[in-house]
Amino acid sequence: MKVNVLGAGRVAGHLANAFVQAGHEVAVWNRGEESLCPIRERLGCLCTTRMEELPKQVDMYIISVKDDVVSDVATQLYGVIGETNAIVAHTAGSLSMDLLKQYFQHCGVLYPMQTFSKDKVLDYTKIPFFVEGNAEVVKQLKCLAEFVSKSVFELDSEHRKYLHLSSVFACNFVNHCFAVSEEILKGIDIPFSVMIPLIEETVDKVSGMSPRDGQTGPAVREDHNIMEAQMELLKDEPRLKQIYQLMSENIIDYKKDK
Amino acid sequence: MKVNVLGAGRVAGHLANAFVQAGHEVAVWNRGEESLCPIRERLGCLCTTRMEELPKQVDMYIISVKDDVVSDVATQLYGVIGETNAIVAHTAGSLSMDLLKQYFQHCGVLYPMQTFSKDKVLDYTKIPFFVEGNAEVVKQLKCLAEFVSKSVFELDSEHRKYLHLSSVFACNFVNHCFAVSEEILKGIDIPFSVMIPLIEETVDKVSGMSPRDGQTGPAVREDHNIMEAQMELLKDEPRLKQIYQLMSENIIDYKKDK
Repeated sequence: MKVNVLGAGRVAGHLANAFVQAGHEVAVWNRGEESLCPIRERLGCLCTTRMEELPKQVDMYIISVKDDVVSDVATQLYGVIGETNAIVAHTAGSLSMDLLKQYFQHCGVLYPMQTFSKDKVLDYTKIPFFVEGNAEVVKQLKCLAEFVSKSVFELDSEHRKYLHLSSVFACNFVNHCFAVSEEILKGIDIPFSVMIPLIEETVDKVSGMSPRDGQTGPAVREDHNIMEAQMELLKDEPRLKQIYQLMSENIIDYKKDK
Repeated sequence: MKVNVLGAGRVAGHLANAFVQAGHEVAVWNRGEESLCPIRERLGCLCTTRMEELPKQVDMYIISVKDDVVSDVATQLYGVIGETNAIVAHTAGSLSMDLLKQYFQHCGVLYPMQTFSKDKVLDYTKIPFFVEGNAEVVKQLKCLAEFVSKSVFELDSEHRKYLHLSSVFACNFVNHCFAVSEEILKGIDIPFSVMIPLIEETVDKVSGMSPRDGQTGPAVREDHNIMEAQMELLKDEPRLKQIYQLMSENIIDYKKDK
């Protein structure tokens, strides 16, 4: 396939790389030159800051820019190419497909659910992709995604909101729990690295069983003495104390609910 | 060394196994016969439900039972052996060393920080051990622990409370975030397994950088539109909504605090 990628951030860079690896013909546009350079160097494909220089005869435009400029880039793209038979899809997990509908007949979403770090090599085959669009668009996006990943799902915008919410708990809030843990350890001069084996085991467990069944700790044991004592340690951190209490209550509820 | 292990639960079983592997002479006592059987079969060492049958000339007693019966077992042990020159240590991260002091002169704590599943093979060399006691006890416990693990720290009861609190955030609350994520995914008929690559990447990141620096998501971007929309999705789950809000506020605070 011939694919134009709009954007040169983390997701765009990884996707362009994955598409090239899968044998597609790729061109990349980005507003700024700076982020384009490393992509040009690595992939050797056409990289331009002028949208009108992108190849016209393509199968797909993938808009992969920051959430708050997806709409602007779509407007700009429509200004440059007008109506098109190509598929125009964005990669934003938290945005509806609707904001492309006003300009493009064959619009869609191609959402790779992963936390992308710029210079890190990722195993794309393991990244789940969620696609959305009309039947023909879904077929094409699935085809593109299946070149890259073994795990491709169809999911509409309404359901994708819940997927995104779910990933905020499983990834962003999890990372913040690590940050809180690190902060507490700083106070007793212990490096956060001591937690890594425990963390790895915690994660390892949920590959094989439901996290509900793998819950450990004072809350699930309903050990109120320890919970009280731990909340007392957080007395100078009222917000953390409240988080501790709510999380513990929720753990106990989930246990009863099993 | 000659070590008597009191208890036959997960931690006790793993420790007895690790001690035998390290070449120590081990005997195990447990109140019930049932949990002793698999240990006897696997290790072939003396396993008994009668405390008075344990070898008398030993270097160490390791009390590794549920937190709420450590004190009872210590009392029972004192009743059977009386005053002793052997070291008597418990393995409970959340309990003070003091509850052994009244009976035993050479008391201590040997806390392996890991979440132990019964039938899982663990790499003990990676599990951090935290030891406490007077200088001589610490020396002996360190020696025992260093046979097993590469990561042994001295930490007194007061500081260990914070270590334990830190592990509740990094392990128990993290697992609960996974459980919440799973629950949300159930509603849209997506298996929790789609989250695993994201989770593995999240954990992989914190092996190399501070979790503060690796924070991603709507809160750290201060994307209030998305945060509001996600809290709206949780409107029928007031406690989760509150957790969402507090976690987000804390993420923003940590960012400002950097």
